Amino acid sequence: MRTTRQQVVRWTGGVAQRSFDELAVEEPLEIRVDTRSLVVTMRTPGNDDELAAGFLFTEGLIRSREELRDVRPNKRNRESNSIDVFLAPDVSVDFKKLARRGYASSSCGLCGKESIKAIQRKFKPVRSRMKMASNHLLQLPERLRAAQPTFERTGGLHAAGIFTSDGQLVIAREDIGRHNAVDKVIGYGFLNNLLPFDEHVLVVSGRASFEIMQKSLAARLPMVCAVSAPSSLAAEFARTNLQTLVGFLRAERLNVYAGRSRVNFSGE
Amino acid sequence: MRTTRQQVVRWTGGVAQRSFDELAVEEPLEIRVDTRSLVVTMRTPGNDDELAAGFLFTEGLIRSREELRDVRPNKRNRESNSIDVFLAPDVSVDFKKLARRGYASSSCGLCGKESIKAIQRKFKPVRSRMKMASNHLLQLPERLRAAQPTFERTGGLHAAGIFTSDGQLVIAREDIGRHNAVDKVIGYGFLNNLLPFDEHVLVVSGRASFEIMQKSLAARLPMVCAVSAPSSLAAEFARTNLQTLVGFLRAERLNVYAGRSRVNFSGE
Repeated sequence: MRTTRQQVVRWTGGVAQRSFDELAVEEPLEIRVDTRSLVVTMRTPGNDDELAAGFLFTEGLIRSREELRDVRPNKRNRESNSIDVFLAPDVSVDFKKLARRGYASSSCGLCGKESIKAIQRKFKPVRSRMKMASNHLLQLPERLRAAQPTFERTGGLHAAGIFTSDGQLVIAREDIGRHNAVDKVIGYGFLNNLLPFDEHVLVVSGRASFEIMQKSLAARLPMVCAVSAPSSLAAEFARTNLQTLVGFLRAERLNVYAGRSRVNFSGE
Repeated sequence: MRTTRQQVVRWTGGVAQRSFDELAVEEPLEIRVDTRSLVVTMRTPGNDDELAAGFLFTEGLIRSREELRDVRPNKRNRESNSIDVFLAPDVSVDFKKLARRGYASSSCGLCGKESIKAIQRKFKPVRSRMKMASNHLLQLPERLRAAQPTFERTGGLHAAGIFTSDGQLVIAREDIGRHNAVDKVIGYGFLNNLLPFDEHVLVVSGRASFEIMQKSLAARLPMVCAVSAPSSLAAEFARTNLQTLVGFLRAERLNVYAGRSRVNFSGE
């Protein structure tokens, strides 16, 4: 149910005609922790357990697989738009920690460089010695695209993929929300005990923002590649946390914004 | 300060060289209402007053220009990452209304179709009889791009533009966040008493999601055009609220997902 077929009027080359188009599905998901509502995010249905686990992990609310007892749909919600996360005994989540991010009705402390540093300190800088050849990097967007069937049909989904340092795909996920796609691939790693991803690279189909970098750091990813542009804060975050950040990764080119030593340039 | 220049390693056609690249600036902005912290959003600095006013208005927290006494930087924040909104006497904002959206630590009620309908009811459907010729529509992305100088340099910013029904640009704004760009153009209209935009069209450089549609409805926009794909919920929202939704608006083509009667197809 990741796409839905719908009648449209298509106008091409001066001719209008009724036709059908596939749209990426967008629906809200409520994530509950021990039956208490934590967050609502607009997402594309599918792999909701990964999304929930990945969200809790990348936001620093849970740290290890053992802390999570179960993730399953909240059956009282008929539309499958609510998922229950149950924590292990003696584990609890600090709901206020999340309130500091995004919409917050109390003072959040995210404003100003001091506060950004405070958040960055939640996770230590990465120390991985992984390296990747530039020629291998150039192939990753195409491999991610090949694992992303829905985009071809809708043009409307972001993708995130985790690759090993020799370019093998570990997992790829799609979502209408850029952050959700990242939460899903990291959540997959979390649920399947594959973390840390400290010899891996995260590839995202769009741009790289501060939040993408922060989520990647939670999973200990030493390298993040974006097919499109990074933001100033993403580059700053990568430098501070010793991550490699590659942008504009296309068929024949790439830019390295931070952590150049992990890229082996062919022909050097 | 919308871009920042930074050293990068650029690898093109097998040759790596040190170079410079312009990055879109991303920084947090705290929006305070009568000195109480309401929300933090990552944004591109610039037109923060429009962003703050537009955010409050499109989220339904304030309804008219008279309710807003002043918007100005919070001078106690040295990095200009905090802005103060002061309401008129006797006006107050329901902070809980916002908590229902996004990260919420209390039950939010956004899950399931019933709840989506509840939120949609905040604003009535549009009744505008505006129409637009398809030939005019096709020119809007190029006009928006021409008003968006930063994208050319960074490739990293979303744009939103308000046009009249004969294709004249009213205002265009850029931001690293898609929603922020929309809040800025609507906030511009709000602050300058140009609302409602009920004979206008909103053009966004990327995709159209539920939240973009909801913000456009607050401004009474009868038509929203996205250069890229809409989501399923965006199309559903447009139909429910009698808005026209155009997607994949490119040089020679467009798709109409809802409200076809407002588009005059040339050659029909």
